[in-house]
Amino acid sequence: MRGAVLLAAALLAADGADGAVGPSRAAQAGASASAVASDVLAPVLVSAPEWQRMREEGKRYPLFAGEQARVARSVRAAMAEGVVVPQPKDPGGGYTHEQHKRNYLVIQGAGTLYRLTGDRAYADFARDLLLAYARLYPTLGPHPAGRGQIPGRLFWQTLNDSVWLVHAIQGYDAIRETLDPRDRRRVDALFRRAARFLSDETPENFNRIHNHATWAVAGVGMTGYVLRDREMVEKALLGLSRDGEAGFLKQIDDLFSPDGYYEEGPYYQRYALAPFVIFANAIARNEPQRKIFAHKDGVLLKAVDALIQSSYAGYFFPINDAMLDKGLDTAELVAAIAIVYARSGDDRLLSIAQRQGRTVLTPEGLGVAEALAAGRAEPYRFRSMMLRDGAEGNGGGLAILREGGEDGQALVMKNTSQGMGHGHFDRLNWLFYDNGQRVVTDYGAARFLNVEAKSGGTYLPENSSWAKQTIAHNTLVVDERSHFDGDWKRGEAHAPTPLLFDVADGVQIVSARMAGAYDGVAFTRTQALVAHPELPFPVVVDLLRVDGAGPARYDLPLHFNGHVMTVGFEASRNIEERPVLGEANGYQHLWVDADSEASDRTRSLTWLLDGRFYTYRFGASAPTRALLVESGANDPEFNLRREPALVRRMDGRTDAAFFSVLEPHGAYDGTAETVHGADSRIRGVVHVRGEDADVIVLTLASGAILALAVADDADAGRAHRVAADGRTYAWTGAYARFDARAGDDGSNRPRTEEMP
Amino acid sequence: MRGAVLLAAALLAADGADGAVGPSRAAQAGASASAVASDVLAPVLVSAPEWQRMREEGKRYPLFAGEQARVARSVRAAMAEGVVVPQPKDPGGGYTHEQHKRNYLVIQGAGTLYRLTGDRAYADFARDLLLAYARLYPTLGPHPAGRGQIPGRLFWQTLNDSVWLVHAIQGYDAIRETLDPRDRRRVDALFRRAARFLSDETPENFNRIHNHATWAVAGVGMTGYVLRDREMVEKALLGLSRDGEAGFLKQIDDLFSPDGYYEEGPYYQRYALAPFVIFANAIARNEPQRKIFAHKDGVLLKAVDALIQSSYAGYFFPINDAMLDKGLDTAELVAAIAIVYARSGDDRLLSIAQRQGRTVLTPEGLGVAEALAAGRAEPYRFRSMMLRDGAEGNGGGLAILREGGEDGQALVMKNTSQGMGHGHFDRLNWLFYDNGQRVVTDYGAARFLNVEAKSGGTYLPENSSWAKQTIAHNTLVVDERSHFDGDWKRGEAHAPTPLLFDVADGVQIVSARMAGAYDGVAFTRTQALVAHPELPFPVVVDLLRVDGAGPARYDLPLHFNGHVMTVGFEASRNIEERPVLGEANGYQHLWVDADSEASDRTRSLTWLLDGRFYTYRFGASAPTRALLVESGANDPEFNLRREPALVRRMDGRTDAAFFSVLEPHGAYDGTAETVHGADSRIRGVVHVRGEDADVIVLTLASGAILALAVADDADAGRAHRVAADGRTYAWTGAYARFDARAGDDGSNRPRTEEMP
Repeated sequence: MRGAVLLAAALLAADGADGAVGPSRAAQAGASASAVASDVLAPVLVSAPEWQRMREEGKRYPLFAGEQARVARSVRAAMAEGVVVPQPKDPGGGYTHEQHKRNYLVIQGAGTLYRLTGDRAYADFARDLLLAYARLYPTLGPHPAGRGQIPGRLFWQTLNDSVWLVHAIQGYDAIRETLDPRDRRRVDALFRRAARFLSDETPENFNRIHNHATWAVAGVGMTGYVLRDREMVEKALLGLSRDGEAGFLKQIDDLFSPDGYYEEGPYYQRYALAPFVIFANAIARNEPQRKIFAHKDGVLLKAVDALIQSSYAGYFFPINDAMLDKGLDTAELVAAIAIVYARSGDDRLLSIAQRQGRTVLTPEGLGVAEALAAGRAEPYRFRSMMLRDGAEGNGGGLAILREGGEDGQALVMKNTSQGMGHGHFDRLNWLFYDNGQRVVTDYGAARFLNVEAKSGGTYLPENSSWAKQTIAHNTLVVDERSHFDGDWKRGEAHAPTPLLFDVADGVQIVSARMAGAYDGVAFTRTQALVAHPELPFPVVVDLLRVDGAGPARYDLPLHFNGHVMTVGFEASRNIEERPVLGEANGYQHLWVDADSEASDRTRSLTWLLDGRFYTYRFGASAPTRALLVESGANDPEFNLRREPALVRRMDGRTDAAFFSVLEPHGAYDGTAETVHGADSRIRGVVHVRGEDADVIVLTLASGAILALAVADDADAGRAHRVAADGRTYAWTGAYARFDARAGDDGSNRPRTEEMP
Repeated sequence: MRGAVLLAAALLAADGADGAVGPSRAAQAGASASAVASDVLAPVLVSAPEWQRMREEGKRYPLFAGEQARVARSVRAAMAEGVVVPQPKDPGGGYTHEQHKRNYLVIQGAGTLYRLTGDRAYADFARDLLLAYARLYPTLGPHPAGRGQIPGRLFWQTLNDSVWLVHAIQGYDAIRETLDPRDRRRVDALFRRAARFLSDETPENFNRIHNHATWAVAGVGMTGYVLRDREMVEKALLGLSRDGEAGFLKQIDDLFSPDGYYEEGPYYQRYALAPFVIFANAIARNEPQRKIFAHKDGVLLKAVDALIQSSYAGYFFPINDAMLDKGLDTAELVAAIAIVYARSGDDRLLSIAQRQGRTVLTPEGLGVAEALAAGRAEPYRFRSMMLRDGAEGNGGGLAILREGGEDGQALVMKNTSQGMGHGHFDRLNWLFYDNGQRVVTDYGAARFLNVEAKSGGTYLPENSSWAKQTIAHNTLVVDERSHFDGDWKRGEAHAPTPLLFDVADGVQIVSARMAGAYDGVAFTRTQALVAHPELPFPVVVDLLRVDGAGPARYDLPLHFNGHVMTVGFEASRNIEERPVLGEANGYQHLWVDADSEASDRTRSLTWLLDGRFYTYRFGASAPTRALLVESGANDPEFNLRREPALVRRMDGRTDAAFFSVLEPHGAYDGTAETVHGADSRIRGVVHVRGEDADVIVLTLASGAILALAVADDADAGRAHRVAADGRTYAWTGAYARFDARAGDDGSNRPRTEEMP
């Protein structure tokens, strides 16, 4: 409460003209600010007593002390080089871009170190950098490498200018008291000018409901607190018109689902998360009465869990535009963990902090370091869950099925909405992880972040021509066209309909239906992770049914990771010349390695990845061809990774069903030179369509039967009956799993487990 | 000495007929053997007091106790399944193959556990397994999946039968005392029969100078010690004729160079090492007067160091037929480390044991575990070295240049001899490691070890058609034919001539000449690792000169690892159809991605690997084309990995010089989203041929000059002078490095450092 009262006074005091800081005008340079002045000069993003506590206690806790040493090394290196504030010139990855990025980290770091050590040299260096910016900034127009509709001033994108502001204002908050009045007026004016550019002068950015705008409102809002400018804070919270139709609160409402899923997906979630939690923390400190962390039922706290859950082996699920190497150690999540831990006290967050090996030099970071030093870390509980998408939770969702712990199996089914401009055209796509590896993959984004030689480090042309296209994903393509014909704005209007999500013993299952991706076509996909005592690991059962608009070509790709061991079907091989699969919509980027005749037999493909075998058995309701392809065609600049895929192709049907089973098995141990379980434990897979349901029957090596039945209708009370393979499967509800021992003959109904 | 005396007595006692073990005949089943009998029944591979000490102390040391627990788990699992000794049927990787492999480990493990715990159940299980083998073995003829000229009995290859013997006899030694006389006679007879099969009955294997024979002599020799059969021991040591023209001592003499390099290279060295050191250890224990570890100036101990040095980031240099995933954690090296540590006491070996996380359940393993527990481990000192090849050290050698510690730069130049049938046709080939990664690569072997689906786990057809061929390596190909036209027996007759090996401050250099790989053609290659204050890492300077027999096509491939960032030259791209490079000798396996016109300009290629950039600048004495290719063509079974290469091609010249500089630079940090140093720090590279020497001049970004001069003649006393680029380079000796600051004009002779 004290902070809030102080701030109220400060905001009042700042209501005067720019720089009207009253008593401090009279203060001598270098003298400590008077008691009255401190009301409008004292740090507000972290309070003076908090700084004092960190200064006293930080060295006791290795994580905090290590972080301080790390920051000190980089700040001292910058101090040794002196003030380097170059004329903006280069795009992302270029020299001036990287130098300005470095500078904002140094400004923040130097301000922090001043508070943590009392060494005035740090404050002076941050001041000198800021004064250099105060001189440079007013001279700048649009960045010469300006990109998009709104070029930045210091950087090519306003986004980077916003990030500069978020960091620099934190550094300035820490040292503002130390400046003499003339310098302070200059630096205040710099921040006012930067905040004005990022708000009033660029409303088309600031008022958006988009992560770029979150960085802008965070920077502007925190600047408002530091400069005691209530109007600036209110614009940040409520939009330029201060009516709540834009701004931070509206962004929280609209960009996060009730489960904390961020509509662009995990990659942008971790990026957006930083300004959300950092600004929210500043709001909580300065205006606790807003109860910002309780806003929308505490969604900002849920969002951090949702983001951590959206990862495997430390890396985020790379759905939509995403870099594969981005994961839990991302700098943005370091601050978020600390801030959420300070609120929730959930010791499982500590194991994430431990893995990051870093924290932030804030009171919240001190809390994490203290708790870790006290040995309070608990393992994070990665679990099966459905993260609903959409502001109201009605825009589909991301289903995560896990088994066998953190490095066990994870099946991710992407039943989310479009996710705006960074969304991919991949409704009902799926990914599969096992044994710490990406097994069924998503290409992620075609981009080399900040590598200037690759389109200046921005998204490559192949991001649109390949990575976003449906064929680059593991879901249905109709007539070689992508979902919504690749128009994301059309995609925004259509969300999948969740049908089923259940986590039971031995079966975890999810199902959803998608309509609108193609005119008149609806497709329904059910995926399950099914365990059996005779199988070393759970298998994935996949059923995709299409209700078509007329005869069409249906392609169902599987992008897999590993080296092909056995191609379990006849195929003609292109071994001396490699043709391209198609003309457009991503097909032009696929080389065709092998192509089979159409057949209605269930076929198989086995590959080896990191010492484990994966056998994929697949069939369909009508004859399909099986093509083995690889990305990398029509790629003049070597922009694409070259990765294999299997394409199942059915021509000329209106309605169709595709079924498959993916089975991890065996072990290849290169060190011990042993192999076991290289043969699949599944003898065959059969699919039977009943009147109102499907049954997929697996016959295991022992002859044991494992069947999964899925009703069209998820109604828990409805009874179903399907005759298949000499047996009758009867159950009530959306799905059922059946087990029969080897030797049971068709006359015996298998043991039936009815499930809700 | 006590052991020696005992053995002498034992050998005498065993000089009688098969099974004539005297007093023990009278011993009751289950009763402890009498004092007299113990002379011929007591364990000899590890003595009873040694077993006793391990039993008492082993549990104190975590490494030993952990190993014992691990072995106990696997032996108990086998005991739970009972005696499973199937009729031999399957090839490598198949069920019966893996079960017999498992059995020999269990026999050894159970014998060991009996001694370490006193639990008779272990001894009985080992006995029951051996009795089952005693019943089965006499019924066996050649293995039905028999491979090569000498099929095994239990396994498809005699090699595996030998390995069975090496392990099983150790287990038997531990329990022999516990058997009743009837069982002992049966099992003794089993081992006699197995030893006879592997020696007298297969002289064409036993008398070879080859690692397969080493396993055979080790098994037979150890069986001789256990059965107190002096003749068997002598055949193992001296060959079947006991004249020293074959057998273990001759193998040591001929297979290891004086520096401990094994002629087939590291992959087979680690495989061969096990029987060498295990048998040597048995010899040392039973006949210390032979001073076996001092044989050939202690070469067996040197060989262990040589093997460890032939690794990077834990993996052996994959020259010749080699699996890439084989490294320091290989089981064979676990025993070797323990045995060598017991002899040398070099605490640096302990860090390797620590990395392995394992040891052996022998007195030597106890010693390692004890020393590790006492905290005595020191870092292994990976260093630059030349490992001479050839029994006399005059068959070329493997040059290793290192800088920056274990994960820093390592340049490996393969100037070795052929290496028999597993040798590749790659004289003066090179590999480069940096930043923990394989940067300039060797394909290794085309094989999926023990994966039955891939040619039964043996070498694939592509091992001959691709992996062994010269074009699959980083060395000169003349007229699209491999060295020695791919005939390894011809290759055996020609070794490279080492010219220079020097490790100095700022320059490490190696040079060798090869004649005979092609009729009338000699080529000389000089490679150096050169450091400079303006370069973040040392660069590789490479000069290859060809003295031809007439106009020819010269191809010089560079197999690199990473994603292409910048193709620094004009090239036509095959983006819609991918042709194959050639017809034979490996060329048929290369897809052509890009092809440039011939040019005499110095060109460049930049790639990114694990966050570091690599810029390769290359030129030649005459116009060359530059082709970007990828392996994987004409590979109907998907047996090959798909990896990129650059091929520099010069047509129609007789003499030629190829020069290049490989520069690691910059950092891409995906976590922090920063990039620095993405631009090369080298502005240009020029090559000048003088009268009797070459100079390669690097101009750095600052304008600084760094030049490397290499004389044709390695004579340390001869003076050379080359005018290049407006400067004159004068030095005395084989090579010199020159540095000049930016701004020095041509009239100033650069600072000259004369080098020996």
